[in-house]
Amino acid sequence: MIKQNFAIIGLGRFGGSICETLASAGAEVLVIDKDETRINDYKNIATQAVIADAQDENTLKELGIRNFDHVVIAIGEDIQASILVTLMVKELGVKYVTAKAQNEYHARVLTKLGVDKVVHPERDMGVRIGRNLISKNMLDYLDLSSDIKVAEIRVTSRKFADKSLESLNFRSKYSLNVIAIRREKKVEIAPQASMALELGDSLLVVGRKKDVENFDKLMEQ
Amino acid sequence: MIKQNFAIIGLGRFGGSICETLASAGAEVLVIDKDETRINDYKNIATQAVIADAQDENTLKELGIRNFDHVVIAIGEDIQASILVTLMVKELGVKYVTAKAQNEYHARVLTKLGVDKVVHPERDMGVRIGRNLISKNMLDYLDLSSDIKVAEIRVTSRKFADKSLESLNFRSKYSLNVIAIRREKKVEIAPQASMALELGDSLLVVGRKKDVENFDKLMEQ
Amino acid sequence: MIKQNFAIIGLGRFGGSICETLASAGAEVLVIDKDETRINDYKNIATQAVIADAQDENTLKELGIRNFDHVVIAIGEDIQASILVTLMVKELGVKYVTAKAQNEYHARVLTKLGVDKVVHPERDMGVRIGRNLISKNMLDYLDLSSDIKVAEIRVTSRKFADKSLESLNFRSKYSLNVIAIRREKKVEIAPQASMALELGDSLLVVGRKKDVENFDKLMEQ
Amino acid sequence: MIKQNFAIIGLGRFGGSICETLASAGAEVLVIDKDETRINDYKNIATQAVIADAQDENTLKELGIRNFDHVVIAIGEDIQASILVTLMVKELGVKYVTAKAQNEYHARVLTKLGVDKVVHPERDMGVRIGRNLISKNMLDYLDLSSDIKVAEIRVTSRKFADKSLESLNFRSKYSLNVIAIRREKKVEIAPQASMALELGDSLLVVGRKKDVENFDKLMEQ
Amino acid sequence: MIKQNFAIIGLGRFGGSICETLASAGAEVLVIDKDETRINDYKNIATQAVIADAQDENTLKELGIRNFDHVVIAIGEDIQASILVTLMVKELGVKYVTAKAQNEYHARVLTKLGVDKVVHPERDMGVRIGRNLISKNMLDYLDLSSDIKVAEIRVTSRKFADKSLESLNFRSKYSLNVIAIRREKKVEIAPQASMALELGDSLLVVGRKKDVENFDKLMEQ
Amino acid sequence: MIKQNFAIIGLGRFGGSICETLASAGAEVLVIDKDETRINDYKNIATQAVIADAQDENTLKELGIRNFDHVVIAIGEDIQASILVTLMVKELGVKYVTAKAQNEYHARVLTKLGVDKVVHPERDMGVRIGRNLISKNMLDYLDLSSDIKVAEIRVTSRKFADKSLESLNFRSKYSLNVIAIRREKKVEIAPQASMALELGDSLLVVGRKKDVENFDKLMEQ
Amino acid sequence: MIKQNFAIIGLGRFGGSICETLASAGAEVLVIDKDETRINDYKNIATQAVIADAQDENTLKELGIRNFDHVVIAIGEDIQASILVTLMVKELGVKYVTAKAQNEYHARVLTKLGVDKVVHPERDMGVRIGRNLISKNMLDYLDLSSDIKVAEIRVTSRKFADKSLESLNFRSKYSLNVIAIRREKKVEIAPQASMALELGDSLLVVGRKKDVENFDKLMEQ
Amino acid sequence: MIKQNFAIIGLGRFGGSICETLASAGAEVLVIDKDETRINDYKNIATQAVIADAQDENTLKELGIRNFDHVVIAIGEDIQASILVTLMVKELGVKYVTAKAQNEYHARVLTKLGVDKVVHPERDMGVRIGRNLISKNMLDYLDLSSDIKVAEIRVTSRKFADKSLESLNFRSKYSLNVIAIRREKKVEIAPQASMALELGDSLLVVGRKKDVENFDKLMEQ
Repeated sequence: MIKQNFAIIGLGRFGGSICETLASAGAEVLVIDKDETRINDYKNIATQAVIADAQDENTLKELGIRNFDHVVIAIGEDIQASILVTLMVKELGVKYVTAKAQNEYHARVLTKLGVDKVVHPERDMGVRIGRNLISKNMLDYLDLSSDIKVAEIRVTSRKFADKSLESLNFRSKYSLNVIAIRREKKVEIAPQASMALELGDSLLVVGRKKDVENFDKLMEQ
Repeated sequence: MIKQNFAIIGLGRFGGSICETLASAGAEVLVIDKDETRINDYKNIATQAVIADAQDENTLKELGIRNFDHVVIAIGEDIQASILVTLMVKELGVKYVTAKAQNEYHARVLTKLGVDKVVHPERDMGVRIGRNLISKNMLDYLDLSSDIKVAEIRVTSRKFADKSLESLNFRSKYSLNVIAIRREKKVEIAPQASMALELGDSLLVVGRKKDVENFDKLMEQ
Repeated sequence: MIKQNFAIIGLGRFGGSICETLASAGAEVLVIDKDETRINDYKNIATQAVIADAQDENTLKELGIRNFDHVVIAIGEDIQASILVTLMVKELGVKYVTAKAQNEYHARVLTKLGVDKVVHPERDMGVRIGRNLISKNMLDYLDLSSDIKVAEIRVTSRKFADKSLESLNFRSKYSLNVIAIRREKKVEIAPQASMALELGDSLLVVGRKKDVENFDKLMEQ
Repeated sequence: MIKQNFAIIGLGRFGGSICETLASAGAEVLVIDKDETRINDYKNIATQAVIADAQDENTLKELGIRNFDHVVIAIGEDIQASILVTLMVKELGVKYVTAKAQNEYHARVLTKLGVDKVVHPERDMGVRIGRNLISKNMLDYLDLSSDIKVAEIRVTSRKFADKSLESLNFRSKYSLNVIAIRREKKVEIAPQASMALELGDSLLVVGRKKDVENFDKLMEQ
Repeated sequence: MIKQNFAIIGLGRFGGSICETLASAGAEVLVIDKDETRINDYKNIATQAVIADAQDENTLKELGIRNFDHVVIAIGEDIQASILVTLMVKELGVKYVTAKAQNEYHARVLTKLGVDKVVHPERDMGVRIGRNLISKNMLDYLDLSSDIKVAEIRVTSRKFADKSLESLNFRSKYSLNVIAIRREKKVEIAPQASMALELGDSLLVVGRKKDVENFDKLMEQ
Repeated sequence: MIKQNFAIIGLGRFGGSICETLASAGAEVLVIDKDETRINDYKNIATQAVIADAQDENTLKELGIRNFDHVVIAIGEDIQASILVTLMVKELGVKYVTAKAQNEYHARVLTKLGVDKVVHPERDMGVRIGRNLISKNMLDYLDLSSDIKVAEIRVTSRKFADKSLESLNFRSKYSLNVIAIRREKKVEIAPQASMALELGDSLLVVGRKKDVENFDKLMEQ
Repeated sequence: MIKQNFAIIGLGRFGGSICETLASAGAEVLVIDKDETRINDYKNIATQAVIADAQDENTLKELGIRNFDHVVIAIGEDIQASILVTLMVKELGVKYVTAKAQNEYHARVLTKLGVDKVVHPERDMGVRIGRNLISKNMLDYLDLSSDIKVAEIRVTSRKFADKSLESLNFRSKYSLNVIAIRREKKVEIAPQASMALELGDSLLVVGRKKDVENFDKLMEQ
Repeated sequence: MIKQNFAIIGLGRFGGSICETLASAGAEVLVIDKDETRINDYKNIATQAVIADAQDENTLKELGIRNFDHVVIAIGEDIQASILVTLMVKELGVKYVTAKAQNEYHARVLTKLGVDKVVHPERDMGVRIGRNLISKNMLDYLDLSSDIKVAEIRVTSRKFADKSLESLNFRSKYSLNVIAIRREKKVEIAPQASMALELGDSLLVVGRKKDVENFDKLMEQ
């Protein structure tokens, strides 16, 4: 099996974090940044680390950017540089390009230039944090469709303590499937209906978004 | 049921995105920023929008910060301001404080000052993007414990096409539970064992991390 | 007959010069610039002059940019602003857009965004000046195709003085058609073959590029 | 035949474009700029490329500026530098000097210092673009005198389609001489009167300015 | 007896002055500053002088900061740097840390991070100077408790001239003990009651704060 | 008794701290600073607070600077301003001027201009902190002459615990007079020889510098 | 007799000093400067004081610059502004223009633009100071031609003390005419030959440069 | 005879001009400036040219400043540097110090520090130019005392043409002594009374200031 190879242009906190994640998963990673200090921070993590200005088309050619499976353009504040580098990378024929956008207009330009995936780290993380703040008992979630959600919900209401899923009549009452129950560090996948819940347990449930949210709100009562 | 109330200090892309998420969920939101333009952008979204320097302790007192359930300190680049505002907000007695950190040291100072949740948007989003890049067929995931993972994996390998879970001997062969199957926009929760998979379906599975990753890799063959 | 209407965004020397040319030709011209001084310079020349930041999409909408026949984006040094405004103007549905580029990459981004005509004033004028410097007797020229040229050439060689086109056997010898002869301020269109040339006359000729250039070089001998 | 030699001071987009034009025409070109990057961009194009500050009179002397046929002062933004260098170049006795001006006052000072040709790239190109915008069917033009114009006009009106110049009674009706007709890439010089026009043809006409403009306007009906 | 060892981070006027005081008392002193000029000024005074950025945790580790008895963080204007370095120094386990604060909030953050002694040179010296200005005859003082003060008071009132402590009935009248009398450069410790005071003598007295201040005021009469 | 009146020019941390000390002692205080924010901070503390540039001689005259008993020139970073204001204040005839110096040269210029007392807060406080660090048991001290010192020394050595001054043969053995003993918050002035010392007591002693230091060192054994 | 009128553009130390000199001599003086503070300093000295940018041609016209007898262009550091204003002032037809130059090249441009008198204050004053330093006894001087000098020379050599011009055989020995003798504040014009010189007298002499310098050197012996 | 030696600190236009004057008079000149370019300009003119910061006391000592007869402190814009260097130079014991002042306050500080001669080039030259503008016929002048003036006045009034001093009754009528008459380049010292004046002659006269000015005004009639 051939290793995947990635090039990351821009080693700010976002690009650096992608680099670490990819490298620790065993991928081949080339990183490019103008700043020597940043390159030094990642030269032992990435497969190859190059001090260069990615806005110089010759640099991109010499580094063989066209041969990379994916290129991530993680250029931080400089929207102009981000756009010019994206233009070059796409024109060199890279198949899959992910780019970071600073705002909506930036995102639209990137899309017109053919970027495959546009990311807004600050905005997207803000949405996640906002949702967590609203539902403190919903520890994490995953949207399966616009209507179906999987969520991990902590049992904080005494109404559920010491009761089995069966006795709670869980499925019919809350219209949710319980996929797993986590009690401290141990996870019970496909738990038996007779298992009694305890305060502090986390239930992994799947169901309609509305039903998940209603169940989460019951925990606050 | 009483509405939750939040104060957000700093309306950059991160703080602004939290504001929108909270407001659209019906929460009461106070936003504070020094910059008039930003306040104007959010004055119709937030419950209350104030142009003020949060580093002025009197401002925080006059705004009644101590009465808020949660305060989010989303101050962008200015680490010093972030630290001083955090100090004041905690000393005023706010119970639950979320703060954005620029780097590890900043995070450690915030923790010493009593912040409940420290967020690194760029770094955390980098981790998510990195993981998605590695496993292009794993559309999304959720870590239930350090060992157990729920993941949505797209069927791209012909080996699975037109075969039922039963005929694949799914559970014993891959050590994973299939919680749901998404076919285009329709989701089948707790699918029957006789249901035949199609190329392009997404399977929501739960199981050991290692088993999930092995199954994901099969899709690339 | 309906007047043509134009919007010019950016009133530097380039945009300002376009504004004057269009206005003196009787066109309706809207000009937009962030700088009050510049707007004051053109408010009596343009039909409408607005101090505004064209990077604000609402401004463009309120000014009804979509209703203009042509929009000229003459933003000077700020490549990022030029790109964002171009994006908005095209997305608002303007049919014909001319934009000024600072360099090749900028030009390529503008083209990807759908700009109809990209202009490089400094570069294009450099080409014209360069050509004039090379052929000091070729006062002006016009390329009809990649092969055919019309040129105005000054007679500076004594070999042509006091000779008629006929006696010079002009057409067969130089493979050029003489369209007109200018003597000081008077122009003789379709001159007669018997007309004698004088030093200082300008001949307007049409023919193959190579023949025009050869004839021009004869003047230097 | 001796090669012409030129010195260009200032290698911005304007100076650089002149350099390329002159060099590709086979002239000897010396270029001078303070900026090493710019000199590197042109060192393989120009005959000689020197990193130097042209405001240093000794530099100009050592480079033998007085021996050049023409000097082009293409200094960009720095009006003071442009004036001082012009002073020195003229005092060193260069015969023919072309200089770029930023505005009217700059132009007037340059003229007082004895510059032979003052160029305003942005303003002059603005005039050309403005004229093209007004007359979209007049593809190019050349002013022979204040009254006589040569123009290339595209046939876009159905009134002219499939009619010969003869049947149109062209000369007497429009008071213009047709010098050539371009049909796609082929040019017919001195076309026969029986040649029928087609939509999309370009006519190269010569005549009074007013008649040319009237004819151009007919195309828009 | 083992020498005490100190590390001083930041060599402004405050840090530099501490360095000189400690070094002249024979202590081992390591000084760290980013600025080469400052390090040069102290390299012959300190035991070890290092040009380094103390915000780099590796630097602190390599210098063995954890082995120092005391660390003084004398970083001047940069509050952020002061806080981050303090965090690191405390986390490395240094027992006794003195840090300079710029303002009250800075001081409170430093205290939360575990600093043992927070100093405000400008503010503290202002208090001393202010007190001296109020009582020009009180040359120096020392607060033993909130109530008891030792002070050196100059005799400027003729009422005391040429009178012995005895004849003045000093102790009972002014409720103060005279510990010493300084006459020019000579000091008489535990002076005899028969000793006659002279104008210009300094009395070292101990007693209640209020009695000391009253006695000082008598000198102005 | 007439109140003393002071003028303070410059309200940084040093000048502000002097202002607070003088005002709380009941003196009349005029403060002058260019910065409105600073003046607002002190307008309720000082008798009079004026936003003005003290470098303007007319301002100083209009404020009647010559009528003040003392003027404190507490200008922070701007050495030139400090010198010019000092010149004016002295030329206006103020009797007693205190000025803050940034370095030795600044101090020497101020002295030449006739300043009565030059203060270096950072340097002077550095000396105090340095001495405290060296002798952790010497809590405070006061130099009576170059040879005689009063010092407060904490008893930390077990050798002195539970022993009376008499039994220790204190005066003859250590050549020091014990003026007072502080036990927690209570101070015993002129303690009896039979009083037994306890660990943690502070002894206020007077004697030769060398003897004081030797006694302090005994505490560390 | 009609008053002379002057316009001074630029009120730095040089322009301001000219303004004061002209105004105190009773001339009409208009002063122009962009800076309000400077205009305020001179509004009671000049006849008219205007805050304006002299680089705006309309301003110059509205102020009627063409009607002034003399215009002094005393613009300080900005060479470009100095040149542009000079151009305009000359083109408006002012007869007599004095302008300050920053360096030789600036001076040459000003001369080309038709300035009548170019002044270099720093350079010219440097020459005067240099000469005074060389000949400390030559108190002042005036060059009548390249060869003839008038000079005031102090008698410091004992060889001349108590001797009459006659007995010194002054004229024949030193080849100089004594025009006047100054003794303290009294000046004797055309002194008698019998008048005896005293140490400290100043002799006003006229003669050849070389003889003046030789006589000056005798004073140092 | 020993050569005079000078040190000049600061090589702006003023210091540089002094350097040239002194060096061309054969004096020994040391020049000091921080700027390498300036030192290069004068290294072939001065006896010794040193790149150094004169604010560093050690530099001044190593250069042996105390051994120079005169030191000229010609530091340009930086008043603080001018003051500090003056302090050091005077404290090192230099006998004669000339310093350039930027304004009145600067001058007063320099005087307090013991500077022997304070110069204001811009202001002093402004006075000279102002006087010349007022009296265009008074070509140059020299003040012998507050009352007596020597002046060179051009004969421009026809009333004096072709008349001898005798016939004009010069001395009694104008109360002035004529010392010399310059006619073009020739100077007649102590001219005979019979010599007839011509238009364009210059008279060198000595007399009371008022009489000189009255005579000058006659020329304008």
